[in-house]
Amino acid sequence: ENHRNKGKQTDSEREINFSVIGQYVDYLVKEQGVKNIFVNGTTGEGLSLSISERRQVAEEWVTKGKDKLDQVVIHVGALSLKESQELAQHAAEIGADGIAVIAPFFLKPWTKDILINFLKEVAAAAPALPFYYYHIPALTGVKIRAEELLDGIQDKIPTFRGLKFSDTDLLDFGQCVDQNRQQQFAFLFGVDEQLLSALVMGATGAVGSTYNYLGKKTNQMLEAFERKDLSLALNYQFCIQRFINFVVKLGFGVSQTKAIMTLVSGIPMGPPRLPLQKASREFTDSAEAKLKSLDFLSFADLKDGSLEASS
Amino acid sequence: ENHRNKGKQTDSEREINFSVIGQYVDYLVKEQGVKNIFVNGTTGEGLSLSISERRQVAEEWVTKGKDKLDQVVIHVGALSLKESQELAQHAAEIGADGIAVIAPFFLKPWTKDILINFLKEVAAAAPALPFYYYHIPALTGVKIRAEELLDGIQDKIPTFRGLKFSDTDLLDFGQCVDQNRQQQFAFLFGVDEQLLSALVMGATGAVGSTYNYLGKKTNQMLEAFERKDLSLALNYQFCIQRFINFVVKLGFGVSQTKAIMTLVSGIPMGPPRLPLQKASREFTDSAEAKLKSLDFLSFADLKDGSLEASS
Amino acid sequence: ENHRNKGKQTDSEREINFSVIGQYVDYLVKEQGVKNIFVNGTTGEGLSLSISERRQVAEEWVTKGKDKLDQVVIHVGALSLKESQELAQHAAEIGADGIAVIAPFFLKPWTKDILINFLKEVAAAAPALPFYYYHIPALTGVKIRAEELLDGIQDKIPTFRGLKFSDTDLLDFGQCVDQNRQQQFAFLFGVDEQLLSALVMGATGAVGSTYNYLGKKTNQMLEAFERKDLSLALNYQFCIQRFINFVVKLGFGVSQTKAIMTLVSGIPMGPPRLPLQKASREFTDSAEAKLKSLDFLSFADLKDGSLEASS
Amino acid sequence: ENHRNKGKQTDSEREINFSVIGQYVDYLVKEQGVKNIFVNGTTGEGLSLSISERRQVAEEWVTKGKDKLDQVVIHVGALSLKESQELAQHAAEIGADGIAVIAPFFLKPWTKDILINFLKEVAAAAPALPFYYYHIPALTGVKIRAEELLDGIQDKIPTFRGLKFSDTDLLDFGQCVDQNRQQQFAFLFGVDEQLLSALVMGATGAVGSTYNYLGKKTNQMLEAFERKDLSLALNYQFCIQRFINFVVKLGFGVSQTKAIMTLVSGIPMGPPRLPLQKASREFTDSAEAKLKSLDFLSFADLKDGSLEASS
Repeated sequence: ENHRNKGKQTDSEREINFSVIGQYVDYLVKEQGVKNIFVNGTTGEGLSLSISERRQVAEEWVTKGKDKLDQVVIHVGALSLKESQELAQHAAEIGADGIAVIAPFFLKPWTKDILINFLKEVAAAAPALPFYYYHIPALTGVKIRAEELLDGIQDKIPTFRGLKFSDTDLLDFGQCVDQNRQQQFAFLFGVDEQLLSALVMGATGAVGSTYNYLGKKTNQMLEAFERKDLSLALNYQFCIQRFINFVVKLGFGVSQTKAIMTLVSGIPMGPPRLPLQKASREFTDSAEAKLKSLDFLSFADLKDGSLEASS
Repeated sequence: ENHRNKGKQTDSEREINFSVIGQYVDYLVKEQGVKNIFVNGTTGEGLSLSISERRQVAEEWVTKGKDKLDQVVIHVGALSLKESQELAQHAAEIGADGIAVIAPFFLKPWTKDILINFLKEVAAAAPALPFYYYHIPALTGVKIRAEELLDGIQDKIPTFRGLKFSDTDLLDFGQCVDQNRQQQFAFLFGVDEQLLSALVMGATGAVGSTYNYLGKKTNQMLEAFERKDLSLALNYQFCIQRFINFVVKLGFGVSQTKAIMTLVSGIPMGPPRLPLQKASREFTDSAEAKLKSLDFLSFADLKDGSLEASS
Repeated sequence: ENHRNKGKQTDSEREINFSVIGQYVDYLVKEQGVKNIFVNGTTGEGLSLSISERRQVAEEWVTKGKDKLDQVVIHVGALSLKESQELAQHAAEIGADGIAVIAPFFLKPWTKDILINFLKEVAAAAPALPFYYYHIPALTGVKIRAEELLDGIQDKIPTFRGLKFSDTDLLDFGQCVDQNRQQQFAFLFGVDEQLLSALVMGATGAVGSTYNYLGKKTNQMLEAFERKDLSLALNYQFCIQRFINFVVKLGFGVSQTKAIMTLVSGIPMGPPRLPLQKASREFTDSAEAKLKSLDFLSFADLKDGSLEASS
Repeated sequence: ENHRNKGKQTDSEREINFSVIGQYVDYLVKEQGVKNIFVNGTTGEGLSLSISERRQVAEEWVTKGKDKLDQVVIHVGALSLKESQELAQHAAEIGADGIAVIAPFFLKPWTKDILINFLKEVAAAAPALPFYYYHIPALTGVKIRAEELLDGIQDKIPTFRGLKFSDTDLLDFGQCVDQNRQQQFAFLFGVDEQLLSALVMGATGAVGSTYNYLGKKTNQMLEAFERKDLSLALNYQFCIQRFINFVVKLGFGVSQTKAIMTLVSGIPMGPPRLPLQKASREFTDSAEAKLKSLDFLSFADLKDGSLEASS
């Protein structure tokens, strides 16, 4: 939820600003060509919200996205299995298009079987919804390889449909693709700055924070890749890398993503919630100058691709 | 909450078994000489519970511990500040003796100031309760040194009273003690297998999972240290180390702690909740044989020390 | 040096078997289509040899490779700058085609400038030889990004010609390529199992241990990529990944590489030197069965590509 | 070798200044009460020297220490087993009192048995010299626990006499002591800032860089501990911690150690060799001010303890 509006003084400012979600949907579809949304994930600070807030945010996206978005997938992962099940059931009730779950990361599942059992119990709470695994080992510390997890996963989780893969181990990613060609899983790559490398390895889509504002540029890269114009695709990838490389050196995270998104879209995303801190004015000014120098701020029309924005 | 009773078949078995908490209190006081409790922490799988369950567990410990325990400190840390505040307020309402908070560890506070702000907001929800910081960098990935955090902390958090220090960096720990001699903070050490080393560095107490069943032995070590019988204290420490060293090699965590505690106390602690898995029969048998060989299973009377059991 | 012959009993068996190097050259050229060699690197256990042995191995490769190989690059990195300089000078004297240097990794260079100074002093000992930086942060612990290192590097090291990049951070790799398009540097990728992902990001070649025995298959992938037959290239990449994925699960390192190379080439590579241990018979049998099942053991003629074998 | 004298301009300044070693010996004995030396280790930049330089440095210490020092132990560890054996044999020839070996850390020994085999081959090259293992897992990445390594070690290495333990895992350290009480091994602790915690766990001595200039203060701590004056011992430890804590925040390593040692002893230690860089003037000034404020610069007479300076 890039759409809260929290200040230091008043309590009301600390609350989620649901009213911008409708605008946000229109912006993504029209300006960025993005029609798939991953709600309550890392970028959306899903784990910083209360369960009740997560339900409200999910509901608002499903409602406002109706007939506009292709897919609204709700991240329902939580440290507590009970809470994750509650969120999964709620996602089904409100008519979401799918649920995604991160591996629990305080007490950790030490084997594939335990992780599968955990995921299975969540999936079973929404037995009609497509289920996606959110693989992000650097953040969770859960090092179970995705390729091993996927081996036989549909026997345990019949609703399994794919994964968001947020890691640079393209041996693991490639083997996920290679060993599951018949299943038509979605292999969604989550490291935006090297998406082109994952496309050539068989990625079927992408989920990431930068697609909120670089969606159009990325769609152009996808089209060039589709046409086998690798040189043009690489030019787009390098252009995106130059921006990401620049902001990474300034300190780049969820707070900074919100600031850039506010800047580019004009929609007030609000500050992040603690333990994050609002991006500095200095950061925002530098990022803006860089975007301008890279010619990212002039937009044109664009067809939609297979991107999903994290929000 | 080492006191749930979860099976594979029936739903009722997956629920917390509140009825054993009274027995548990009596056991700790009478058999282990432990009169301080740290509720809903790592050992108690606090973060695997729903908020509603955490409230119930806290309430039961406060109720059953009345007039028997010296202190019941409730761990109210959570990824969501709102939920943490709710738990803090609840702890005050039920008459707990203090609250403790772990650093948030998914989105992480990157500076001391942000972490202090987060902790401050939780503490402010229970302005009359002593506040403890739970420092466990290996699990949270939050590397802000405790010594730096404590510098000026009472200006920001007037209820600050001490910390649980679960790390082996005794430079950091020693400097916490050295730089705060006037404040009479509690410096509670959380690495059970090297407690003696922290005592000599100024630790004022200890919080740990093994005190559930090695509390008496550890109290004997504390007494020997108090009398400056360092040779005897070291003998006790080595004896404890031999057990911990043994189980660590078998794979030692919260599940195994529950199994040992059931074994030693006779109180059914129940299995852990996913993402943990019940300790194997093989583990329990090996641990039992080791305890017997170390003569840990014969208990005698004992005065209480400054230990706190994690539960 | 995949060509020592060390046993447990006799001292003579512990010595390097120089006589196989000639055969090795012929094998790489004829059977694998590999005409560039990286000598005394990780695979060749260069850092386990004495300085005198490193000189002899380098000399033998240059001599035997004459008129057969395109390039023989000698790795001259060492913990001691003096020894590294001695090796660099020697490489020039024997007529090597270039030198490569790893970042020192016991006492570590903490800034780009210190690392550049170290590399510069080595390069200056062989002022007529092309200089390559060997970037392998997971092994060295030196996290200075390659992209930053390359910024202005020719002002300091006029002989700089490129790098071996052994990491999965393709943002860093991509920016190395993007920011140095005019210089015609060699961007040699060193993670064999995801080479295709680096090719699309601008890699100009590859250096790796598997090219000793998968060189031909990899050359076929390079050709398919060149023709923009991405589907065929991916098939080759997946086939290579299946083998690497298989052996990685068995425990895969320099010892195992030597065993596989002996198996595939028929040339006795000998056991590794301590602190490595000869691969088990069980490993070798499993690897052989896997190679057969993947149809890697039947070779045909092949043109050479831009691969470099590590030896 | 804290005794080189390297400048930027002249080549002669890059060479080791052997002439100060005699002074250095006298200083340690008279001013610091240190009579045991660990030569060519981390502090002495042993691994940055050529083999020939390491021999010369060792020889000079043995010669100048004769009848003045109790023990001169030479660190002979190297990445190459052959070179390590050469240095071990040389140490025996020149009459050193012992040798010490670090685990090889580029290609790593993956099991206890392989590491033992490596160490055994070095020890066998000096069969009459006491052998010490230098355990420093954070630097080497070799995580084999010391306690496991010591189990049965004298069957394989009859000359084994003890270890330098540079880690904060006091369970591992304690179990080394506990399980080897009969053998009279030397358990030398290597984390200076928490030595007191290791003493209470059974340490028999200490090896560290700070004993070059804090040796006297540390000896006072040892004496207080010996007399069971734990309060005074802790005062000394805290005083030492305040200094180390201060310099750690400024960036503290081998370069900074040399600068402080020059300052305190008046003996010109010279700059470090690449990949290290001379400590800044700013650092040295800050460290000097801190030493003065802690009253470390006024020395009195002192009996010798069981300290060993790293040089």
